[in-house]
Amino acid sequence: MNLAAYLESRRADVDRALESLLPVPEGPASRLAEAMRYSVLSGGKRLRPILALAACEAFGGDDAKILEPAAALELVHTYSLVHDDLPAMDDDDLRRGRPTAHKAFGEAEAILAGDALLTLAFEVLATRPAGSQRAGRRADAVALVARRAGQAGMVGGQLADLEAERRPPETAPPEWIHRHKTGALLSASVELGALHAGASPAEREAIARYGDALGLAFQIADDILDRTASAAALGKTPGKDERSGKATYPARLGVDASRREAERLLALALDSLPETLARRELLESLARYAVDRTH
Amino acid sequence: MNLAAYLESRRADVDRALESLLPVPEGPASRLAEAMRYSVLSGGKRLRPILALAACEAFGGDDAKILEPAAALELVHTYSLVHDDLPAMDDDDLRRGRPTAHKAFGEAEAILAGDALLTLAFEVLATRPAGSQRAGRRADAVALVARRAGQAGMVGGQLADLEAERRPPETAPPEWIHRHKTGALLSASVELGALHAGASPAEREAIARYGDALGLAFQIADDILDRTASAAALGKTPGKDERSGKATYPARLGVDASRREAERLLALALDSLPETLARRELLESLARYAVDRTH
Repeated sequence: MNLAAYLESRRADVDRALESLLPVPEGPASRLAEAMRYSVLSGGKRLRPILALAACEAFGGDDAKILEPAAALELVHTYSLVHDDLPAMDDDDLRRGRPTAHKAFGEAEAILAGDALLTLAFEVLATRPAGSQRAGRRADAVALVARRAGQAGMVGGQLADLEAERRPPETAPPEWIHRHKTGALLSASVELGALHAGASPAEREAIARYGDALGLAFQIADDILDRTASAAALGKTPGKDERSGKATYPARLGVDASRREAERLLALALDSLPETLARRELLESLARYAVDRTH
Repeated sequence: MNLAAYLESRRADVDRALESLLPVPEGPASRLAEAMRYSVLSGGKRLRPILALAACEAFGGDDAKILEPAAALELVHTYSLVHDDLPAMDDDDLRRGRPTAHKAFGEAEAILAGDALLTLAFEVLATRPAGSQRAGRRADAVALVARRAGQAGMVGGQLADLEAERRPPETAPPEWIHRHKTGALLSASVELGALHAGASPAEREAIARYGDALGLAFQIADDILDRTASAAALGKTPGKDERSGKATYPARLGVDASRREAERLLALALDSLPETLARRELLESLARYAVDRTH
């Protein structure tokens, strides 16, 4: 299959869904809507929504029906970036090649825009796709994303990551941080697609293992790129992890051994895919893509 | 009825539900769980959960079954307080008589604890009460709370409130700010109780009008207390609105006229209550309580 064409086509679908979901700036809270739109509509890869769409299609579901819940994953991802970039957190000025939300709109506005994006994500997950016969899946989708994005998942990982920088002796293992900070939402993405395709509990467990391995491989790739890529290619300031002494994979193992670890995780992800998939090659290509970015 | 005994008994029920819902501090993200517990388990009045329980009972529902979704409203309320207290927002040091979350745990921790509380609230709303026949109500509950708490509700109100302080000439009317910043979640509380009691759409509309009027009356009462009460009685620094020149009701109309406006809203709230209620006196007493606090 032509992965580049698939990614580009789905990215455009997701961007249209995001555009339609975001509030129009008007009234006394118009600057909040502006900050939300600015943060989301900034040309991201939309990897999480695409993983959800691909998983839905792979399990024989109709991915066109879940564009909006898939886009909700990007709202969650964007909120986490907006908050992570804040001065009290990673203190980043540049994101996707543009000033970060707090630089463009102010710190209070960035905090509130993140809050509103997270809240909107759950509204979308609870209401789309419409239809009373799908209410059970919508409630399950909210629960799934909330578990992966909350204290036991992404937010917990972000806190552990901050603590590791400040108190290295008490550091959580980098693998724990990666699995939570980045892996949890990537895993939720494929689980969400499988859920809406009507996958069985066993199938959802299998795809969650794929998502876990993929998420970890993806984060290792990101850490490697932070060492090897330019600011223009990254769209953000490179080398920050290295300067701040973060215990990333490349910092511990070196770049080459980290690449081998990513390859091992890729194999694990592919092994985890259930035999019953209607379209296996899509999820295989996406896993390879995550790792190949590092070369 | 004995309102004080009712409030105390329900407050204890809600506190037990909150205790059971909050994560146990352990593992690499234990400080996050600590900050969440510290912020929530601090002796609040639990007005929003109690309004949900009372509305459920008033519509003939079994309020014991919705303790956890009701408690989720307190998680949403607490997250909003934790974020509002941040240095970039209202910059408050004291809340419910104790150091605010960012003073006790650090700014990054407070941001993340707020994020995790909001996320946990939606997880709870999507999963409780259990049972597949209730999935539709759970999905509706998530959508309801998300709409009232998000950009078009509470978060939008908070942004407009901040802008009004910084750019008075472009100020949103105080009523708009109150309706959104405080009223939206109070209204969501009674709507949630009615929803889980199986109220009809018309009944839910009526109870939303009650909630809107009650919420506005409640905020006026809070603004009056900010002028007339002591720090010990408030559990936070009084007089901040006045010093910052906020366009509150008492600032515009004076304390006496504001009290009369709160009384007018109380009458409106009582008029909005549907005739069909199984237990009307509970919601009547609660509305009176909100306004009587100002005397």
